[in-house]
Amino acid sequence: MKEPLKSKTNSQVWIVENGRVRSHLDRLATEEPLEIRLIAGESQQTVAVTMRTPGNDFELAAGFLYGEGVIRRRSDIRRMTHCLDRGVAVENRDNIVNVELSPELLPDWRSLERHFYTTSACGVCGKASLEALSLRDCSPIALGQSVTDRVLYSLPEQLRSAQRVFAATGGLHAAALFDTTGQLLAVREDVGRHNAVDKLIGWALLGERLPLSDRVVLVSGRSSFEILQKCLVAGAPIICGVSAPSSLAVALAKEFQITLVGFLRDRRFNVYAGMERINVVSELL
Amino acid sequence: MKEPLKSKTNSQVWIVENGRVRSHLDRLATEEPLEIRLIAGESQQTVAVTMRTPGNDFELAAGFLYGEGVIRRRSDIRRMTHCLDRGVAVENRDNIVNVELSPELLPDWRSLERHFYTTSACGVCGKASLEALSLRDCSPIALGQSVTDRVLYSLPEQLRSAQRVFAATGGLHAAALFDTTGQLLAVREDVGRHNAVDKLIGWALLGERLPLSDRVVLVSGRSSFEILQKCLVAGAPIICGVSAPSSLAVALAKEFQITLVGFLRDRRFNVYAGMERINVVSELL
Repeated sequence: MKEPLKSKTNSQVWIVENGRVRSHLDRLATEEPLEIRLIAGESQQTVAVTMRTPGNDFELAAGFLYGEGVIRRRSDIRRMTHCLDRGVAVENRDNIVNVELSPELLPDWRSLERHFYTTSACGVCGKASLEALSLRDCSPIALGQSVTDRVLYSLPEQLRSAQRVFAATGGLHAAALFDTTGQLLAVREDVGRHNAVDKLIGWALLGERLPLSDRVVLVSGRSSFEILQKCLVAGAPIICGVSAPSSLAVALAKEFQITLVGFLRDRRFNVYAGMERINVVSELL
Repeated sequence: MKEPLKSKTNSQVWIVENGRVRSHLDRLATEEPLEIRLIAGESQQTVAVTMRTPGNDFELAAGFLYGEGVIRRRSDIRRMTHCLDRGVAVENRDNIVNVELSPELLPDWRSLERHFYTTSACGVCGKASLEALSLRDCSPIALGQSVTDRVLYSLPEQLRSAQRVFAATGGLHAAALFDTTGQLLAVREDVGRHNAVDKLIGWALLGERLPLSDRVVLVSGRSSFEILQKCLVAGAPIICGVSAPSSLAVALAKEFQITLVGFLRDRRFNVYAGMERINVVSELL
């Protein structure tokens, strides 16, 4: 079941349409497991296995560890490598990222094990109990800059243009980062929407661009608790989704003073929280 | 951040459209954490915390444990209850399901801990290493019954009609079970698509309706590895998605002789594997 390391995979497919059948060479979004291993001194431990679309794996690992609070800054990471272990089959080595932590950051492996108990890169996950969901360490996000409705209307089309793999496969989530004038700064794609956000935040972390205080995040799908949580930790004040948010995403946005926009498409959107950052200026078609 | 136990949550929302702003009472898909605790004799252990839409929680717990191989039949479960622990705040008790296992099924807690290491109800998860993805215990699914294209064309509309919460919120995934004549047997909704599938399979398990040998599963979104994995364990031969499958989903379908259909909408679909179960009979509009 091994596929090459790339974001698209070719597959022969039968198209059935109104009773007619034809064959077609289709392109699929590649999905493969990524194992994230922490290395500190002599110790080594797998902290997550997530299904992801290959590419930007170091960003994914860094963003995931940042979101989970294992690292807090770029310098906490000493080195990242794909697996070089001769005991691991060659074709699997690109599916393992070793993250070597700075020596003064020796994690408490046992507490880490509890921390990641029932973890994956997806969601609650990483929380061993309901209490861990309360995000006690996070503060509300300062009001700072606002954004105009005109800028927000422009974002989905920019995201679509930048989503190259989606265009080919129809099978990928995306997360994009904009400044408040609507300029696209980065976009990342993945079969898992949480991974797309981890890659985006990992990109920002590795480029010393955190926190995202005056940035707008756009996700291609629904906004869930986990998406808000990751963006909150990265300090993003404005989070937009092309589809609906969940109740817990809205509750978290209200609690932490995040502007949460949903159903952003066709020159319209809903604001679920943080309306004070939205500056409605246009009344033009 | 606590919401009442229901599938929809009301929220005041601002609608911004072409520079005009109005207020509106919107309904959101409810998202809350569910903690699944295993109880065997005197031992007790949390095996998963997943974000889910409240409702059908026992099905979700049963389906999850079945998919992970912790239980193999209905009788492995002695009792399921929502948490009654007085040490847990009343409003959180509905977010915890205690699953009491049959006494002869005393799990090896330490191996369980390894098993669920980096687990959640989502995906790879439940696999402590890449090797665990190989699904060594599963056999290819026997050919059995086929299904006509006409029946498949009819499924998305049936699912839409049955998806009551989605209609109100636009925010839910769904999984539905049909027989090969296209009769709808059950539909389950959730903010997590893996949860919708767990609820559906849990429903079948608790009603002694497994394996799903002559059934068709339809999911409202994309078909990922995890969706295929859960359906494979339940013995489902035909899996359809309204959107794209991932590369690993197709690889798994081919390896285990599953019929995998994607982009099922508007009297057309793609067949990625198992074309031999599709009987194309109609050429009518």
